[in-house]
Amino acid sequence: MTDSMLAALPSALDLVDYFGIAVFAISGALLAAEKRQTLVTLIFFAVVTGVGGGTLRDLLIGAPVFWVRHNATLVICIAAAMLVWITSRRRFAGRALLWFDAAGLVAYATYGAAMALSFGVAPIPAFGMGVLTACAGGIIRDLLAGEPSILMRPELYVTAAALAAGCSSRFR
Amino acid sequence: MTDSMLAALPSALDLVDYFGIAVFAISGALLAAEKRQTLVTLIFFAVVTGVGGGTLRDLLIGAPVFWVRHNATLVICIAAAMLVWITSRRRFAGRALLWFDAAGLVAYATYGAAMALSFGVAPIPAFGMGVLTACAGGIIRDLLAGEPSILMRPELYVTAAALAAGCSSRFR
Amino acid sequence: MTDSMLAALPSALDLVDYFGIAVFAISGALLAAEKRQTLVTLIFFAVVTGVGGGTLRDLLIGAPVFWVRHNATLVICIAAAMLVWITSRRRFAGRALLWFDAAGLVAYATYGAAMALSFGVAPIPAFGMGVLTACAGGIIRDLLAGEPSILMRPELYVTAAALAAGCSSRFR
Repeated sequence: MTDSMLAALPSALDLVDYFGIAVFAISGALLAAEKRQTLVTLIFFAVVTGVGGGTLRDLLIGAPVFWVRHNATLVICIAAAMLVWITSRRRFAGRALLWFDAAGLVAYATYGAAMALSFGVAPIPAFGMGVLTACAGGIIRDLLAGEPSILMRPELYVTAAALAAGCSSRFR
Repeated sequence: MTDSMLAALPSALDLVDYFGIAVFAISGALLAAEKRQTLVTLIFFAVVTGVGGGTLRDLLIGAPVFWVRHNATLVICIAAAMLVWITSRRRFAGRALLWFDAAGLVAYATYGAAMALSFGVAPIPAFGMGVLTACAGGIIRDLLAGEPSILMRPELYVTAAALAAGCSSRFR
Repeated sequence: MTDSMLAALPSALDLVDYFGIAVFAISGALLAAEKRQTLVTLIFFAVVTGVGGGTLRDLLIGAPVFWVRHNATLVICIAAAMLVWITSRRRFAGRALLWFDAAGLVAYATYGAAMALSFGVAPIPAFGMGVLTACAGGIIRDLLAGEPSILMRPELYVTAAALAAGCSSRFR
């Protein structure tokens, strides 16, 4: 990777981050909508699922938690919840949840591993942190909703996150 | 709000904080008592439910965790558990759990949002933090006890916390 | 305890720490193996169960999280998961899980309380932290696996941790 690419990395990674937050927020809101919860609970699930993984990552590497100093992140999550609230009557299928999860997973695993490396975390923990934080949003969502955890279903959740985090670590 | 009222605020907020801890601790101990657990498990639940929300809040805003530097907080939780242990034969009704939860919720949402604002957190995250930390105690309690989460029951849990946090943010 | 013993304490405690991590990692991997998960999920459970308690302890006392600066801890967890993966066909009994849990519990409670005291935590919170962090690994493991929490089973889990943490606090 050339120096000029490295210079462009932060903003590219920021976009990946916002994308990961948005799709996880949608996935959280979708699950709450499926359970016929109120709009407020939809927003709660969108926020917890959207920022859960990144919050865990920031706590583990000792960085300030990314969403407390500005309003943008929570606004994205709230907007995602409202989007789901408005459109949910047209029946997002259960499949949608899986696709959004997968997209968020890859985005978070990539961003999490890269950010941990840039904070001086050793390679294996950086890789592990990419995996953990990518899975954390979906895991917290399922725990709170009382669903069987996505970890235990046959969708290879952790494996996908590990692949994404591994690729990200290698390209640095 | 006048300046003299602002000066009196910290100690008033501290009282609100201790009140929130005590009622959450009672609610945790009540749930463990209902499940016929030992006194030690009652104390464990009282502590986890009592300090869970505030701990999450402190971690998120980067403050030192409030209960590790002095003994008072845990003593309150242990006393609450013992109170429940002694009186539980007289059958606290399941209703009591809900009332204690509601009181703790309002106290924590108010205190959490106010404290986050005073740490320079942006308004929307401060509001969100009031809600999150007010709900966290009850959520952790239900998760650990294997109960269906209070989030998913029809009691408008998150909505109540949101109202309290909203009022608190507005009056600053 | 003499001064020379105090000087030897860190390395002795480090051994206790590694031992606690290894047995908790094995206990996590065993549960995942029992549920017929993939090797990647076994590793995930080994890591989460192995480092869960210590991570919570470090976050609470404001220390840097112990496993992010070097590779050794995660290598131990991964090795534990592979050991379980290779040997699990010979049927580790469900009993094994309990024994590994018990060993990890005592190691963590001892180490957690001692470390908290050395960070200037007040005695009651230090004791509580030994208990909390000793139980956290097993609790997180059961939550993620959708098992009834070990807290609620009749094995006196919290009581054992409390005894170990109490002894550790007294001998300082």
